Amino acid sequence: MAVIYDRVALIGLGLIASSMAHAMHRAGVAGEIVGTARSEETRRIAEEINLCDRVVATAAEAVDGADLVVLCVPVGAMEAVAKEIAPALKAGAVVSDVGSVKRAVIEAVGPHLPEGVHFIPAHPLAGTEHSGPRAGFAELFDNRWCILVPEGADAGETVKYRGYWEALGAHVDEMEAEHHDLVLAVTSHAPHLIAYTMVGVADDLRRVTDSEVIKYSAAGFRDFTRIAASDPTMWRDVFLSNKDATLEILGRFTEELFVLQRAIRAGDGDLLHDYFTRTRAIRRGIIEAGQDTDAPDFGRSGAKR
Amino acid sequence: MAVIYDRVALIGLGLIASSMAHAMHRAGVAGEIVGTARSEETRRIAEEINLCDRVVATAAEAVDGADLVVLCVPVGAMEAVAKEIAPALKAGAVVSDVGSVKRAVIEAVGPHLPEGVHFIPAHPLAGTEHSGPRAGFAELFDNRWCILVPEGADAGETVKYRGYWEALGAHVDEMEAEHHDLVLAVTSHAPHLIAYTMVGVADDLRRVTDSEVIKYSAAGFRDFTRIAASDPTMWRDVFLSNKDATLEILGRFTEELFVLQRAIRAGDGDLLHDYFTRTRAIRRGIIEAGQDTDAPDFGRSGAKR
Repeated sequence: MAVIYDRVALIGLGLIASSMAHAMHRAGVAGEIVGTARSEETRRIAEEINLCDRVVATAAEAVDGADLVVLCVPVGAMEAVAKEIAPALKAGAVVSDVGSVKRAVIEAVGPHLPEGVHFIPAHPLAGTEHSGPRAGFAELFDNRWCILVPEGADAGETVKYRGYWEALGAHVDEMEAEHHDLVLAVTSHAPHLIAYTMVGVADDLRRVTDSEVIKYSAAGFRDFTRIAASDPTMWRDVFLSNKDATLEILGRFTEELFVLQRAIRAGDGDLLHDYFTRTRAIRRGIIEAGQDTDAPDFGRSGAKR
Repeated sequence: MAVIYDRVALIGLGLIASSMAHAMHRAGVAGEIVGTARSEETRRIAEEINLCDRVVATAAEAVDGADLVVLCVPVGAMEAVAKEIAPALKAGAVVSDVGSVKRAVIEAVGPHLPEGVHFIPAHPLAGTEHSGPRAGFAELFDNRWCILVPEGADAGETVKYRGYWEALGAHVDEMEAEHHDLVLAVTSHAPHLIAYTMVGVADDLRRVTDSEVIKYSAAGFRDFTRIAASDPTMWRDVFLSNKDATLEILGRFTEELFVLQRAIRAGDGDLLHDYFTRTRAIRRGIIEAGQDTDAPDFGRSGAKR
């Protein structure tokens, strides 16, 4: 594949950035990859595993001469990074990010960027519960969606950036920032908070030991712990920066949960059966959409990377 | 491996029973497997795929001369089956079940069984979101836990039945019925209800289309839909028959969720970060206990049967 950007700067070298580096190598779309991270330990590991062509000590240094700059730091750290890199950005450069919320990132980053720089926020919907520069792998974005929120950015640059994500393996969609934040509150943010909560409840329950919870965590709880093992800093920032949509969905969730709790208490089997039949249909839709396999092994299979 | 029971009767031929049949064939622990199901269609499929040595039309017929009888029907159907088979049971036979709750099954089945029959309730902690006689596979119980609730059953028969489940691939533990029901409320029943609820909320939300939910269901929501696709009849019966423990856990869950919701509303990032760090440790424990893999693929790998 042909080079799309001569120099790409990755700010932050966690799971997403390291997967982008591997995927860029695989696709051959970057002339040079420059990486940086705030932690010295992270930079040392990145050098050790040859993640980038160059690892530098500061974000300002990393963006120098870069044609594409991707902010891969927690949402709460975006504004400080934007301020730091703004004076060092090359004219005509594309600046993007991979944050899980979009309105808050646009407000934090946008005002600091100089004229003549193209800001195209992005959110690749892919992840694992692992963090750090060693967690990345080239296939992370394959057949996953990457949502762009161009908000009036240059059409030609948007098409080019779209092609970059497609080269990394993703399908690309465009969306308004507010709609993105609501959709993600439903499909990701609220489910994460709920999983964290359930795992916390299990940990607190004195009559059931942690070792029992761990031992008997077959289908059900095990999937919750997988979600609840995601990066704490990233998720703290997600909830704080997508507050309104997350709280709206959690409010609806609580209402609905109370209806089912009352049905259990009242012994209303028909209501429960109808509800469970309806949710089953949604699962079928997801399998048909190719976003999961229909394999009857309930998550017990090993890695296929 | 040697035959442990000369004739085994499976009452109900869904996911668990069909997996038991495959696992019994693999281990060679049953001289003959006789199966039955209420639905004619299920019996027809079982014959077509050679699941059992014999498929018969009624439960009474199936248990005739059987050394081990396993009730593999939804919890709500256990009592009717117990009444039907009681007069036909062979003296000295072992009767067991695979229900997800134990106190309710013991109360439904125990009183109907004749003297001289050994009742050893069991619960294999294994499952997929698939149902029916075609869903079974021999490896379902491998390295999973099977909990026995012998409640004073004959020690020799219990040891023998324990060996049977070990031959099917499971690790075996013994527990009091009430403790089993509480542990399962935490690790399985409450998580299932929560997953059903979250998927229901997503389906109800008019501003986000079902196709968007399905399309963008990457990490997070996808795991919920997998849980929420489980058999509606089985789960209706689980919630109705483990009412007290499930409602207790859901009550604690709601309290805890309100604490996190308030932290989001108040912008208390420290509380959120501490909470998420704590839940992450539980996940590590589960991986160390061998109940899941540490593979960084977040459920996207294919089947390994």
